[in-house]
Amino acid sequence: MLASGGFLVSGVTLKQLPLLEEERGSLSFGEVMRHVPFEVRRYYVIFGVPEGQGRGDHAHRATHQFNVCVRGSCHIAADDGTNRAEFVLDTPATALYVAPMVWTREFRFSPDAVLLVLASSYYDPADYLRDRSEFLAIKART
Amino acid sequence: MLASGGFLVSGVTLKQLPLLEEERGSLSFGEVMRHVPFEVRRYYVIFGVPEGQGRGDHAHRATHQFNVCVRGSCHIAADDGTNRAEFVLDTPATALYVAPMVWTREFRFSPDAVLLVLASSYYDPADYLRDRSEFLAIKART
Repeated sequence: MLASGGFLVSGVTLKQLPLLEEERGSLSFGEVMRHVPFEVRRYYVIFGVPEGQGRGDHAHRATHQFNVCVRGSCHIAADDGTNRAEFVLDTPATALYVAPMVWTREFRFSPDAVLLVLASSYYDPADYLRDRSEFLAIKART
Repeated sequence: MLASGGFLVSGVTLKQLPLLEEERGSLSFGEVMRHVPFEVRRYYVIFGVPEGQGRGDHAHRATHQFNVCVRGSCHIAADDGTNRAEFVLDTPATALYVAPMVWTREFRFSPDAVLLVLASSYYDPADYLRDRSEFLAIKART
């Protein structure tokens, strides 16, 4: 769900995923190169984020990410250096795809929130752009 | 955690995953071909399983699976046709790897449980072995 931001943010897409609701429980899924638009090298889950705390505040130079809040809810703010939008993820049936060179911040996690992220690369500190002015300078050149 | 079953079940392994506990929340991760021993083609999440209900009760002919209970807890019973063991998954930092041709059943989901499964193939009904006697007959031949 788009919470705010009237302009398109380059490299950011909300995707609806299949959801099967049955008597024996619910199931949602994503298939690689069908729903998830890259080969997955890593997943991670973020949980137990205290009220008032946030994650992120960086961009990735080359890594693609696919964010699914599989329990509870959280907000993700994304900007491409020009436009900014804020998304609420509150169902396993919605994913937020984030391309490289998009600045993101994850925040307002509900106490029970679990954010699943599929990533296109192994963890590499050199992939992280944590300096906002460097990010903007690179975006201005490209 | 192994809940019961004194014998080794062929094709089933419990794996510990990295867990980073920080002031701004916790993060656990798995890397493909490092922690996850196959290329991932699909993920799915199971949630909202009512008390008394179970999932599974089948084997996969060719699909490898990597099960992580990322919220709450659930039990997985696994057997290779000869030996059976029951596992409790209650932390994102533990995964249960299940090879093809292992019969599994997932049950005793806590009300908040979310089971994440990474799979080595796209969904294919022909990959499912739902007939217990057919499963045992194939195991007896191999």
